[in-house]
Amino acid sequence: MEKDKKLVEQITPMDKDFAQWYTDIVKKAELIDYSSVRGCMIIRPYAYAMWENIQKDLDGRFKELGHENVYMPMFIPESLLQKEKDHVEGFAPEVAWVTQGGNDELAERLCVRPTSETLFCEHYAKTVQSHKDLPKLYNQWCSVVRWEKTTRPFLRTTEFLWQEGHTIHATKEEAEAETIQMLNVYADHAEQMLAIPVIKGQKTEKEKFAGAEATYTIEALMHDGKALQAGTSHYFGTNFAEAFGIQFSDKDGKVKHVHQTSWGFTTRSIGAMIMVHGDDNGLKVPPRIAPIQVVIIPIAQHKAGVLEKAAELKTRIGKVARVKVDDSDKMPGWKFSEYEMKGVPIRLEVGPKDIEKNQVVLARRDNGEKIVVPMDEIEAKIPALLDEIHNAMFEAAKAVREQKTSVAINMEQFKDIVENKTGFVKAMWCGDRACEDKIKEDTGATSRCMPFDQENLSDTCVCCGKKATKLVYWGRAY
Amino acid sequence: MEKDKKLVEQITPMDKDFAQWYTDIVKKAELIDYSSVRGCMIIRPYAYAMWENIQKDLDGRFKELGHENVYMPMFIPESLLQKEKDHVEGFAPEVAWVTQGGNDELAERLCVRPTSETLFCEHYAKTVQSHKDLPKLYNQWCSVVRWEKTTRPFLRTTEFLWQEGHTIHATKEEAEAETIQMLNVYADHAEQMLAIPVIKGQKTEKEKFAGAEATYTIEALMHDGKALQAGTSHYFGTNFAEAFGIQFSDKDGKVKHVHQTSWGFTTRSIGAMIMVHGDDNGLKVPPRIAPIQVVIIPIAQHKAGVLEKAAELKTRIGKVARVKVDDSDKMPGWKFSEYEMKGVPIRLEVGPKDIEKNQVVLARRDNGEKIVVPMDEIEAKIPALLDEIHNAMFEAAKAVREQKTSVAINMEQFKDIVENKTGFVKAMWCGDRACEDKIKEDTGATSRCMPFDQENLSDTCVCCGKKATKLVYWGRAY
Repeated sequence: MEKDKKLVEQITPMDKDFAQWYTDIVKKAELIDYSSVRGCMIIRPYAYAMWENIQKDLDGRFKELGHENVYMPMFIPESLLQKEKDHVEGFAPEVAWVTQGGNDELAERLCVRPTSETLFCEHYAKTVQSHKDLPKLYNQWCSVVRWEKTTRPFLRTTEFLWQEGHTIHATKEEAEAETIQMLNVYADHAEQMLAIPVIKGQKTEKEKFAGAEATYTIEALMHDGKALQAGTSHYFGTNFAEAFGIQFSDKDGKVKHVHQTSWGFTTRSIGAMIMVHGDDNGLKVPPRIAPIQVVIIPIAQHKAGVLEKAAELKTRIGKVARVKVDDSDKMPGWKFSEYEMKGVPIRLEVGPKDIEKNQVVLARRDNGEKIVVPMDEIEAKIPALLDEIHNAMFEAAKAVREQKTSVAINMEQFKDIVENKTGFVKAMWCGDRACEDKIKEDTGATSRCMPFDQENLSDTCVCCGKKATKLVYWGRAY
Repeated sequence: MEKDKKLVEQITPMDKDFAQWYTDIVKKAELIDYSSVRGCMIIRPYAYAMWENIQKDLDGRFKELGHENVYMPMFIPESLLQKEKDHVEGFAPEVAWVTQGGNDELAERLCVRPTSETLFCEHYAKTVQSHKDLPKLYNQWCSVVRWEKTTRPFLRTTEFLWQEGHTIHATKEEAEAETIQMLNVYADHAEQMLAIPVIKGQKTEKEKFAGAEATYTIEALMHDGKALQAGTSHYFGTNFAEAFGIQFSDKDGKVKHVHQTSWGFTTRSIGAMIMVHGDDNGLKVPPRIAPIQVVIIPIAQHKAGVLEKAAELKTRIGKVARVKVDDSDKMPGWKFSEYEMKGVPIRLEVGPKDIEKNQVVLARRDNGEKIVVPMDEIEAKIPALLDEIHNAMFEAAKAVREQKTSVAINMEQFKDIVENKTGFVKAMWCGDRACEDKIKEDTGATSRCMPFDQENLSDTCVCCGKKATKLVYWGRAY
């Protein structure tokens, strides 16, 4: 019990210190453990089960669209990484190098994959000959390594889990359509599974992926007003195809280079989920990825019939939702706090009085509401309530984002928003890298994306005052 | 068509050169591709889909028994690997070492995990205090690296995919029961999913896992008479718990060390599947892991109604099995060869005459049998036939194993079997390491396991003639 008490007491309020709140929550909700390995975290069962739910949904969407899973080696020989010039420049400074195998020094260093474009390219170059072999729509689930200097659980770790899709196509149009299609898959997943509203748009030249012609992104806003890139999709043109010689004979008999895409979604999304939905009592897990959707807490469980009823309810609810009974010997109040910390969407209380009245009490984690429900209606009520909670969480997150999205016409306004109001800054931009650099230098905000939904807020660039070409979302970011 | 022709012609007969037959098949059936990374292979979609089916079945079995998935870092600091003496001795010579991160030399080398006991131990030591925290039943799906000198696809690769279960328990009895339970899970999976009969038993001291008190194994026999270890389960006693300080306060108030297990199943199983079931026309994939269970080949597909009927059948069969239509412009005969090579369990032929007679022709890959089936019965017939094929493949594999299992009472018989008949040698053993070493030296055969089903074939050791204590299965092995 002493341990439970600490569980509740030690969490730092988010308004006092958001970073510490985050660190407290990932430990207290038993999402991660630190290891003695620099910058790497242990993903504990409760968080891993969320990742499995994310994987299952995304994997189903990928396969529905004709993608196939493969597995590429985790090592990339240095010479292979170097084949595409921009790509190696972007990644070489942040990779881990294997230099010894067993007792032997290696003739060539191998990097632990930071991403696998080069491996997919090498394979495609060997296996594709004709337009009949196209498109190839491959994906892999794996872990990747980027040698980060400062790390935070889920948000930035030396090793993280992700999926990386890599596709090749006969035409530019087809590849571009794939790039946008997969961005839409990510956006739908974020909104429908994680209850996180996102802005879809294109990255600027400065912020795009190393080696890409165009990078598209979904951007979310965290509770502290900072932005987070939640998924990206890249169009490579023929850059990699030329570097790796991925050619095919087309219908017209000509030999051409393929057009290529890649797209990735990572365990960062769990960090986003925490920071979009959580509060000072802990996590709020969106129902559709929640490992436990309903926790049954027996009240006065020593009394006759209570545990039996809890078990019966578990069996019935188990047919429509992921459910757990906590019949440990802790006091109900401590259990309430524990599952609040873990963000379980619905708490079901059942005690002798409820049994007498043939009812249960449902408490919503998202808004604290309590509902009395006739026991007979429970199989119908639970799924409906889970959907209602999902929608309410999505709407709540959207309201916060809207409240924290502001328009800046000049740099004075821009600085004021970033310093005082925080959140997304919507501002027009001339398209020059110099202005992007200056904005970052002056405010710490980076361009998050040029949204697909363009508006004309002003005719001039927020920074230099020259003619504006694009609306951009800006913000300090994770 | 030229390409298809080669597909069929180039496979080496298994009796002529089994190793080459195997190499041909993994390439021609599009299971793997070699990469420029030493000893690592690319697992292509067709093989990866088999692995996904294996994963799904095993993961379901694990969860049913209360196991939870987690993810541990892929790196292990050298000092952590060294904590358990036997373990580091076993693995240090065959690990890959990361010595540089970004542009910096690391202060301490990190090995890429060859297995993760040490990481699980470190985590358990931090998170377990009381008997109420036990047991912990964790598993992870990941890839591991062992720096092998000679490699073969699936069977021995520098990197391979697996699951590793790591559990800790309050008592020896409970941990031992877990070890045996998980071996039984592997045996059931091998027999029920892969149609591979296995011998369950215990490894000798010489052959056990580095750091274990006891290692249990399932052993299968390949078509060429060589054995293959298809899954292992280890009981560690308190060896690791003492090295890592994993202690708990028990019900009696005393502080004790936990009892520990680990168990693993790998992509080797795909290699076993190939070598147990395949023939000179290619793979025979057991129906329950087959990515395509039924391939529909339209006959005279240019004729009116044929492709429509094929599509209709696909929809209907799709409700009960994994099905594909091949309506490409290749000749049916070429398609037959292609799906024979890929080992699809059932080929369904449908042409104008079949449509007229309201029937289809089903051809079994396992025994070549052709069956004419009324079209209306197809949804009932396919699942039943898939089960029948599974059972027939299992029985065929068992018959081969029995035919290639021989008893040796003395070394003359032993050598004769290994040289001429090949397969498992059942022989009594005194229990001395010296005899095990001598048998290996003289015959190349190693002890595969001391089977749970013990028999008394003779009172004396096959090697030294002293009193026998155990029946052992011996064999040359992959």
